Amino acid sequence: MAETIFSKIIRREIPTDIVYEDAQCLAFRDINPQAPTHILIIPKEALEGLQDAAPHHEQLLGHLLLVAGRLAEAEGIAGSGYRCVVNAGADGGQTVFHLHLHLLGGRPLDWPPG
Amino acid sequence: MAETIFSKIIRREIPTDIVYEDAQCLAFRDINPQAPTHILIIPKEALEGLQDAAPHHEQLLGHLLLVAGRLAEAEGIAGSGYRCVVNAGADGGQTVFHLHLHLLGGRPLDWPPG
Repeated sequence: MAETIFSKIIRREIPTDIVYEDAQCLAFRDINPQAPTHILIIPKEALEGLQDAAPHHEQLLGHLLLVAGRLAEAEGIAGSGYRCVVNAGADGGQTVFHLHLHLLGGRPLDWPPG
Repeated sequence: MAETIFSKIIRREIPTDIVYEDAQCLAFRDINPQAPTHILIIPKEALEGLQDAAPHHEQLLGHLLLVAGRLAEAEGIAGSGYRCVVNAGADGGQTVFHLHLHLLGGRPLDWPPG
């Protein structure tokens, strides 16, 4: 896949507000936050999007959601609530083609979700 | 956890437009669709929400996302794009306390996601 800005963030080539890292993923604050807490969680493995995930990626995909829940606790929004969002393709509003999960909270999120 | 309407759906006690089922999950159309395609994907294991997921649930959580991608293909929206959403707690807008993933597509989804 093509190099994205997220590859550069993983390699620490761009200053980024990183909030969490482990062997499988990296989490950092969105530069255009849509809520008081708005964190992106990305796999270090460069999947373009959800459509490129294979059955052997299930644990990795689930890890992104589990990390989102833990970061919600760390941000103090686990009790008040939060939303996790994965955008795929044009209608989904995906703008960076490196799979990422949005964690948003700290305010009531409206319905529909976009 | 308390019984929810989703437990009844899993047991086929409520008429529901089920679109997919396997050993781990069930998928059915949302009764208040917010997009031309709006499907809920739920684990058969009754987790109240993301906050109740443990590390051993990673594969299951990832399975929900993988199934979402496959249902997007089946719905003909994989190319146009779609959004996956997990709501947690009050600010997230979670209304049924049985973990579920929303798959929305068939129209452009706006930003922010709620």
